[in-house]
Amino acid sequence: MTTRRRRFIIHAATSCALVFAVTLARAAEPLASWTDGPARARIVAFVQAATQPGGSDFVAPADRVAVFDNDGTLWAEQPMYFQLAFAVDRARAMVATSPELAEKPAMSAAAAGDMKALAATGEKGLAELMAVTHAGTTSDEFAQVVRDWAKTARHPTLKRPYTQLTYVPMRELLDYLRANGFRTYIVSGGGIEFLRVISEELYGVPQEQVVGSSIKTKYEVRNGQPVIVRLPEIDFIDDKAGKPVAIHKYIGRRPIAAFGNSDGDFEMLEYVTAGDGARLGVLVRHDDRVREFAYDRTSSIGRLDRGLDEAGPRRWTVVSMKDDWRTIFAPER
Amino acid sequence: MTTRRRRFIIHAATSCALVFAVTLARAAEPLASWTDGPARARIVAFVQAATQPGGSDFVAPADRVAVFDNDGTLWAEQPMYFQLAFAVDRARAMVATSPELAEKPAMSAAAAGDMKALAATGEKGLAELMAVTHAGTTSDEFAQVVRDWAKTARHPTLKRPYTQLTYVPMRELLDYLRANGFRTYIVSGGGIEFLRVISEELYGVPQEQVVGSSIKTKYEVRNGQPVIVRLPEIDFIDDKAGKPVAIHKYIGRRPIAAFGNSDGDFEMLEYVTAGDGARLGVLVRHDDRVREFAYDRTSSIGRLDRGLDEAGPRRWTVVSMKDDWRTIFAPER
Repeated sequence: MTTRRRRFIIHAATSCALVFAVTLARAAEPLASWTDGPARARIVAFVQAATQPGGSDFVAPADRVAVFDNDGTLWAEQPMYFQLAFAVDRARAMVATSPELAEKPAMSAAAAGDMKALAATGEKGLAELMAVTHAGTTSDEFAQVVRDWAKTARHPTLKRPYTQLTYVPMRELLDYLRANGFRTYIVSGGGIEFLRVISEELYGVPQEQVVGSSIKTKYEVRNGQPVIVRLPEIDFIDDKAGKPVAIHKYIGRRPIAAFGNSDGDFEMLEYVTAGDGARLGVLVRHDDRVREFAYDRTSSIGRLDRGLDEAGPRRWTVVSMKDDWRTIFAPER
Repeated sequence: MTTRRRRFIIHAATSCALVFAVTLARAAEPLASWTDGPARARIVAFVQAATQPGGSDFVAPADRVAVFDNDGTLWAEQPMYFQLAFAVDRARAMVATSPELAEKPAMSAAAAGDMKALAATGEKGLAELMAVTHAGTTSDEFAQVVRDWAKTARHPTLKRPYTQLTYVPMRELLDYLRANGFRTYIVSGGGIEFLRVISEELYGVPQEQVVGSSIKTKYEVRNGQPVIVRLPEIDFIDDKAGKPVAIHKYIGRRPIAAFGNSDGDFEMLEYVTAGDGARLGVLVRHDDRVREFAYDRTSSIGRLDRGLDEAGPRRWTVVSMKDDWRTIFAPER
């Protein structure tokens, strides 16, 4: 062995030792924002079982896949889905430069910030709003619009950037799972191209691990430059029974842990927790009116009804934001 | 630091050193089955440029994504796509147990192994053959059928299992890229659920890094067990302009290297090599009648015509299987 190669190996070994030391130190206190309740205990027990070599519930690293809903599970979703807030803001900007767009009732209502009038346009109006504000550009242009919006937009009642409204305990959970060899995916009802722009920064989840609803796209060469063009046509809705379908399509293997907060996540949890061996299904319950929002069985956004009834018999863990989380949002930066 | 923790770190550091030593040894001779020609030189120069810290073409590890066509690029595709051979074998097995299936002309021709009669059923017949042999089961059942087939089926003229007909130089290339921090994806015109069953064993490519054509599926609970059911309806054809669309959809970022062998890969190479910085586009040319097959501009399978004309001006590398590869297939096991 040459001296240079030996030095390189010693250097590499030292780096490895440091990485291990840091990992050990961090692993000493995972999930610091979780109280010492049954939810945290259940999560830790699952991870320990899945990673204990030789244990009866050991799961090979390749199969350690965890899926997370986004709206209401990783960040807030009241008083409206943040992507709808984006659409409303974008409608305002688009109507300002192209006033003829206000001829569409949903665009005009959104541009005026009149959420009541917007709701009155019904599903058809909302679909039109999403089509006009989300299609017609290239994917690169759309990503830039989302990036710009995310930098400046603020939540109407919490008065903070949307990007600061992720749940600290859930980000700790993502880190904890990854530190234990899990690959973490987002499986959202929201738009895949919207989320991918911000998923790495918000959650450390890279683009290729984001699954979501999509519109159709097509490939074109414009002025010699290949582009992906966004079309005003639904491709796939990643909600309810669509979630297992999308998981199977994008990931190709059944995850062993699923995290959601609404009945839109029911089938995903059902699919994931029905497999053999170590399995974990978790529902985040919004019951903290003071620090966040309180809603479940009758909410039009993020309704959690069947999930609450069946969590017990299905051995899913219900997380109380009020009791299980010491902190919800990070201190304002 | 406790003795136990110290021991653990020393152990971890030793393991890391070993891993590094092995990696160094292997890296000493990458692409051993490639001759010292311009194709190998171009590939190595690209990888060195993309991984040279501080270099003008350095690419961050997160963006080191390489995409590979499968049929004709990673394994052979003559005298018919291997997945078609699978469909023919499966038609025979299905007709044996359900003779009424032979009422469909394509099924009857396939079951009889009469490829001429099968071709005469046209596109409609082929679509019917694929629908009957590929749908109607759960995804788990289908995976088992493919697994069983791959264990026993043999190529009609090369007289070897299809699974031994991968190209050794391309497997070395996959390893070489991965050793240099690349994530390797397959982007195939073939069926995603067919390929995923064998991609890990054949190429070291995990399920979630396989993109391909797909049929629709739906989620169902059967006897209390959640299943994904395969429907006889095309979802997406991952060929030609569909390849960049699928790459954008599944991976969400533009790869920096693309490998193909036919005009079905043209748009993929065009899309990938049009980006800024270090880019690599490679076409494998089938010009070795002795060791494999020789075909290009006029072949009905794997036609390479426009790609040959434009490879020069586009600075794509054309690999001659005859001249650039010392070995094509591994010795029979």
